[in-house]
Amino acid sequence: MPDGASGSPFPVLLREDRGAVATLALNRPAARNGLSLSLLDALHSELEGIAADSTVRCVVIRAEGPVFCAGHDLKEITAHFGDPDGGHAFFSDSMARCARVMQAIPALPQPVIATVQGLATAAGCQLVAACDLVIAAEEARFCTPGVEIGLFCSTPAVPLSRAVPRKAAMEMLLTGEPIGAEEARRIGLVNRIVPRDVLDEAAAELAAGIAGRSAFAVQLGKRTFHRQAGLPLEEAYALAAAAMVENLLAEDAAEGIGALLEKRAPEWRHR
Amino acid sequence: MPDGASGSPFPVLLREDRGAVATLALNRPAARNGLSLSLLDALHSELEGIAADSTVRCVVIRAEGPVFCAGHDLKEITAHFGDPDGGHAFFSDSMARCARVMQAIPALPQPVIATVQGLATAAGCQLVAACDLVIAAEEARFCTPGVEIGLFCSTPAVPLSRAVPRKAAMEMLLTGEPIGAEEARRIGLVNRIVPRDVLDEAAAELAAGIAGRSAFAVQLGKRTFHRQAGLPLEEAYALAAAAMVENLLAEDAAEGIGALLEKRAPEWRHR
Amino acid sequence: MPDGASGSPFPVLLREDRGAVATLALNRPAARNGLSLSLLDALHSELEGIAADSTVRCVVIRAEGPVFCAGHDLKEITAHFGDPDGGHAFFSDSMARCARVMQAIPALPQPVIATVQGLATAAGCQLVAACDLVIAAEEARFCTPGVEIGLFCSTPAVPLSRAVPRKAAMEMLLTGEPIGAEEARRIGLVNRIVPRDVLDEAAAELAAGIAGRSAFAVQLGKRTFHRQAGLPLEEAYALAAAAMVENLLAEDAAEGIGALLEKRAPEWRHR
Repeated sequence: MPDGASGSPFPVLLREDRGAVATLALNRPAARNGLSLSLLDALHSELEGIAADSTVRCVVIRAEGPVFCAGHDLKEITAHFGDPDGGHAFFSDSMARCARVMQAIPALPQPVIATVQGLATAAGCQLVAACDLVIAAEEARFCTPGVEIGLFCSTPAVPLSRAVPRKAAMEMLLTGEPIGAEEARRIGLVNRIVPRDVLDEAAAELAAGIAGRSAFAVQLGKRTFHRQAGLPLEEAYALAAAAMVENLLAEDAAEGIGALLEKRAPEWRHR
Repeated sequence: MPDGASGSPFPVLLREDRGAVATLALNRPAARNGLSLSLLDALHSELEGIAADSTVRCVVIRAEGPVFCAGHDLKEITAHFGDPDGGHAFFSDSMARCARVMQAIPALPQPVIATVQGLATAAGCQLVAACDLVIAAEEARFCTPGVEIGLFCSTPAVPLSRAVPRKAAMEMLLTGEPIGAEEARRIGLVNRIVPRDVLDEAAAELAAGIAGRSAFAVQLGKRTFHRQAGLPLEEAYALAAAAMVENLLAEDAAEGIGALLEKRAPEWRHR
Repeated sequence: MPDGASGSPFPVLLREDRGAVATLALNRPAARNGLSLSLLDALHSELEGIAADSTVRCVVIRAEGPVFCAGHDLKEITAHFGDPDGGHAFFSDSMARCARVMQAIPALPQPVIATVQGLATAAGCQLVAACDLVIAAEEARFCTPGVEIGLFCSTPAVPLSRAVPRKAAMEMLLTGEPIGAEEARRIGLVNRIVPRDVLDEAAAELAAGIAGRSAFAVQLGKRTFHRQAGLPLEEAYALAAAAMVENLLAEDAAEGIGALLEKRAPEWRHR
C-alpha cells in the first residue's frame, strides 16, 4: 500500500486544529511512522502553510500507534541501492528533504511541541531534538542506533548535540542504546514527563498556554532566541536589545503592561 | 519618592567592602528591586570602579527585602509610552544601559557571585544568569515571565541560553513559569543551595576563598575563560596555552608551586 | 630515576591491544601519573600510530596506581624557573605539547574512552574532558585546582567548558574543589559510574561494543560530530547531510541495512 498524500484516504500526516493550536500526527503506524519522502514532504508542506497562517499560534507534533517515529524509511532506501548511481541522487535528495523539515521547525514562527508516547529513533529522535519543547510519556525512549546498521546518525547529531551535553550525545551516537524518559529529561532532551494517558492533555494545556500569549511577542522572541544562540555575546546582546525595543513599541506590550498594572486580563491585538 | 543616587539618603544600591570582597546590594525593596535607570547606572558605576580597584578581588551581588529583583521598572517604562516617539528613544537607551551592565559582569576582572534569596524575574533572572557563580536560598525562584505581558524576555535569554540547556531555557521563556532553586541547580543556573539563614554566610565564605587566591591568576583565568568559550577548539587552545605561559612566568605561580612543594602557605605578590 | 621512553624498562606509558581495542595506561604511579614531557610525547606518539592503524577501532585511556592523573609535572616546571628566559621557552613548548595531545583525542579517527579510577587533577581532568566517553569508578574525583598554586587551569578549561554547563565549569575553576563521580555525571563530565572492581571490565565491554561496529561509519560519524559542533545550524546540516550520503553509499550501510531487514548479523567490510 503506497503512502497517501494528505488528500488521500490514507494520509501519512494528520492535522487537527483546535483553537489556535495545530496538531500534526505522524500517521504511518504500521511502518513505525518511518519518515518516507511522502511523510517528510507532508510535514514540510504543513509547516509551510502554518508559517503563513496567523490563526495558528502553537504547533504540536505527535504520532499514531505505539512508536513515535523510527527514522528514515529503510525500505525506501534499500530500493535505491541498485540505482545506476548506487542511490547517490536519491540519498542526496532524501537527506536534503529531511534537513529541510528539521530546519523548518526552529525557523517556524510558532513554537513547536513534540509529544513523545513511545520510541523515537534516529531521524525520529532528531525530530524530537529539533522541536522547541518536548513532553514525553513515562514509556518514551530515545535512541540514535545508526551504528547498528553501519550508518552513523550524523544528521540526528546536529540538533541532539545542540540540546544535550556533548558526552551524553556521543554516548547515544556511539552505543546506539536507547535511553528512557527520565534520562532524556536529565540530559535536557525532554522538558516534562507525564503518564501516557494524560500526555495529549498535558500537551494541549501547554500549547493552549503558549497560544494564549501575544503571538507577536512569542514569535519575535522565538526568532530572536534562535538567532542569538550562536553569536558572540556582544552581538547577541545587540540583537536581543533591538528585539526588546521593537517589542516594547508594539501594541501588545503596552496592553500587557497596562493590564498588569491595572490588574486585569490583557487583550492582545496580535492574536 | 525618587530613586536616590549613591550619595543620596535613599541609595538604590548599597556597597559594603569586607577585606577584599565588595558586596553590592540592590536596595529598592519597596519596588521589588526593579532595575530603574538609576539602579542600572549605579550598578554600572560601581562595577567600573571595582574593575579599576586592585584591592577588590571578588564581588557579591545580593538584594534587600524578600524579592531578589523583579526586572525592569515597568512604571518607568509605561511613563514613556506617551512620548512623541512612542518611547523609542527611552526604550533604546534603557536596553543599552541594561545590556551594558549585564556585559560588565563577565567583563569584570574579578569573579562575581549572585546571592539569590527570593524571586529573580526577567532582567532580574538575567542578572543572575550573567554572574559567574550563583548561590541560592531554598526559597529562591527564577522566571522569565515577559510573555505574560506581551514582552518576550529576549535579553534575559542571552545569558540564560548560555547557562542552561536550550530546551530548559525555551521552557522558561515560553511559559513564564517560575522554577525553584533545585530545578535551577539541575539545569545549571545555580551552583549551590543553602538555607536562607546561612545564605550570606555561605556567599561570604565562597567569596573569601576566591579573594584569598592570587588575583593575577584568577583574573587572567576568568578573562581567558570567557574569551575562549566561543572560539573553535584550535583557537581556544592557542589562547589558553598562551595564558598558561603568561601565568607560569608571573611571580605568583613560582610562589604557589614553591609553597606547595615546600608544604607551606603561599604569599601572593599580586593581592 | 628518569622517565623511560616506551622502549625503556620503565615505560611511562603502557599499551595493550586486545582484539581491536588499544588500551593506553599512564604508568608513572609514583609521580601520580603527572604529565611529564616524556609521558605527553609517549601519548602523542601512540595516538599518532593508532590514527594510522586500521586494526584499532577503539581506544581506552586508563592509569596505573591510585591516582588517575595529577596534571603537569610540577617538578619539571620548577626546574625551569631559573632558566635564563625564566622558563619561557620551556613552558611554551610544554603547553604546546600538552595542547597537541589534548587535540589529538577528538581528532583521532577512533573513539576514545577514559577510565577514571581515582583523582583526575588539572591537566589530568583536562585529559578526561577531552575524551569522547568517560567511565568512572565510584571513588573517582575531578578537580581543576590551579588557583591553589597561583596557576589558573586555563587550558583544562577549554575541554571542560565544552563538556559541562558554564557555571559548573566556573565553580570548579574558581574554587579548585574536587567533585565526586556522581556530581561529575550530573554535570556531564562522566557518562557512567561503576564499582571500582568492575571498572576495567565495563570499559572493555563498552569499547568492544564500539569496536564491533563498522569502523567506516564510526569514524565518519565521530569526525562529522566534532566538525559540525561549532557551526551555524544551516552549515552543520549541510555537512552532516553530505556525511549521511557518503555513509549510505559505502558498503557497510548496504550490508547493515540488509542484515537488519534479513534479521541476520552484519559482516562489515571496513573492520
